[in-house]
Amino acid sequence: MASIAVMGAGSWGTAFALVLADAGNEVRIWGRRTELCEAISSTHENPDYLPGIVLPEVITASSDAAEVLAGAEVVVLAVPSQQLRSNLTDWGSHVPGDAVFVSLMKGVELGTHLRMSEVIAELTGAGPERIAVVSGPNLAREIAMREPAASVVACADEETALRLQSICHSAAFRPYTNTDVVGCELGGTTKNIIGLAVGVAVGLGFGDNAKASIITRGLAETGRLGAALGADPMTFAGLAGLGDLVATCSSPLSRNRSFGEKLGQGLTVDEAAAQMRQVAEGVKSCTSVKELAAIHGIEMPIVDAVDALVQGVITPTELVKAMIARQTQPEVR
Amino acid sequence: MASIAVMGAGSWGTAFALVLADAGNEVRIWGRRTELCEAISSTHENPDYLPGIVLPEVITASSDAAEVLAGAEVVVLAVPSQQLRSNLTDWGSHVPGDAVFVSLMKGVELGTHLRMSEVIAELTGAGPERIAVVSGPNLAREIAMREPAASVVACADEETALRLQSICHSAAFRPYTNTDVVGCELGGTTKNIIGLAVGVAVGLGFGDNAKASIITRGLAETGRLGAALGADPMTFAGLAGLGDLVATCSSPLSRNRSFGEKLGQGLTVDEAAAQMRQVAEGVKSCTSVKELAAIHGIEMPIVDAVDALVQGVITPTELVKAMIARQTQPEVR
Repeated sequence: MASIAVMGAGSWGTAFALVLADAGNEVRIWGRRTELCEAISSTHENPDYLPGIVLPEVITASSDAAEVLAGAEVVVLAVPSQQLRSNLTDWGSHVPGDAVFVSLMKGVELGTHLRMSEVIAELTGAGPERIAVVSGPNLAREIAMREPAASVVACADEETALRLQSICHSAAFRPYTNTDVVGCELGGTTKNIIGLAVGVAVGLGFGDNAKASIITRGLAETGRLGAALGADPMTFAGLAGLGDLVATCSSPLSRNRSFGEKLGQGLTVDEAAAQMRQVAEGVKSCTSVKELAAIHGIEMPIVDAVDALVQGVITPTELVKAMIARQTQPEVR
Repeated sequence: MASIAVMGAGSWGTAFALVLADAGNEVRIWGRRTELCEAISSTHENPDYLPGIVLPEVITASSDAAEVLAGAEVVVLAVPSQQLRSNLTDWGSHVPGDAVFVSLMKGVELGTHLRMSEVIAELTGAGPERIAVVSGPNLAREIAMREPAASVVACADEETALRLQSICHSAAFRPYTNTDVVGCELGGTTKNIIGLAVGVAVGLGFGDNAKASIITRGLAETGRLGAALGADPMTFAGLAGLGDLVATCSSPLSRNRSFGEKLGQGLTVDEAAAQMRQVAEGVKSCTSVKELAAIHGIEMPIVDAVDALVQGVITPTELVKAMIARQTQPEVR
């Protein structure tokens, strides 16, 4: 099949590497920390992010990016979204000039307001036919346990999407193709923020009605921004929109939801981050998405409320009030 | 405010009566069983369907339909959907000729394939301006506990929708207006069937990725049938579509999901019904929705699979396979 470099040894990068190995590819993982990479190569387990999961033996890991990238036909990018720019800069000419890039990342860059595929295009010079996104209801741990899951492989070029579909199609992992990169990326990004908001409601003790209302209104505001950015509205009704959002908001395995729960229980952002040993993506992307929406004149009350909570401007209770207790009005404006 | 008859003393009828009482209305409940009605009137509790919830003292209950209906400006219908026709026939001329009807029911009549609002129109002669539907992410027990919730009041006539909105707007319950009765009714009906399918997956031990995929594909097939019936696609993205579906599929309080779980664990329909002391709506409506879809030439694989499971034609494992493990293809056809 293909020679693949998975750049990033977090839970989703590692789980997707497992899918790719199951599908018959040659897979190498790059990780920042040498110690973690050695553990993956020698014990076939990622003790920090997927403890207890036995990885296929074909997967190797290294902290030497040049070694991992050498000869890769497909480069999967799975680093924290705010670090993509500096990572791609560091890797420089080691990135093969003709590789196809697959982004697993969910975020909008702070400052530039660029989506991850746009950062990839800017730094590598790759055209849209070489930049794809994988997104869907894909909680990493469930994927790693080979529970059945569906996902979306999006690329502006359908040929590339079809090629990647066959490359990552395993017995348990079913990818569907789509050409709407913008919609898939945006759905993946806002779901972290909405998941965080749902977590806050859960942490405050609210029930499934309130949760479902936040999910519904969150998808609506995502759709409004998507329309302004040229996304296909159908994408938000699909696996990379609704599907990913529901999985994130339903699962105690979701980092963003868990992070929100801790905030709802009264912890500060720093305290929650310390307990979880990492900051959830939604904490950072709420600010860049809020700014992106403002640039396009789109109202995103949930994103705004999460940003205000994270900045310490409002309390968790005020956040839930801002989301649910509004004036009565027609549902669709 | 208004004099209101709530016809049906189940969990949702009782919870909505509580909302109406909180909103300042005069509320009488009709129930089939005299004993239950006496308990509600004397103890201000519905011991069978909402045990432990103290009802507002203004709510009375009676098994005498004529007494309950007398002088009602609004008649709320909350009986099992397959019994609406015989109930309305029994009540006959006791139903006030100028009342507005509010359906809380979710189903399609077996044999006739009529939605509940159509059955109401046929039997009472009321025009569309006097028939409304309330639907949304409204798990009855949470509503009864006055947790914050949003919902949709739909009527073809916006004036009526607005009047009903003000009548049922309490501190905890926020109704939004909509004119798409078809979409709201259909969303409410199929969510029971999809919730049952999700329950089967949960009962078999599948995780949140699979659940989210079933929810996503379920909403897509609902949208296809809705388009054929003239519903507004936006309704399915809203509280009465996505919102209601997510609440039903997420909550252990949902009867349809719980029923599906028992089937997934290997119980027969009869065994599950015996354990739950009632049959879930989805068990009956899957057949009528399947037939309605066939009449309009719409594919509904999840509805078909649930119907086949309920009829004993396929096993729970085959149901989940039919829903998830299909050929790879573009997401939107």
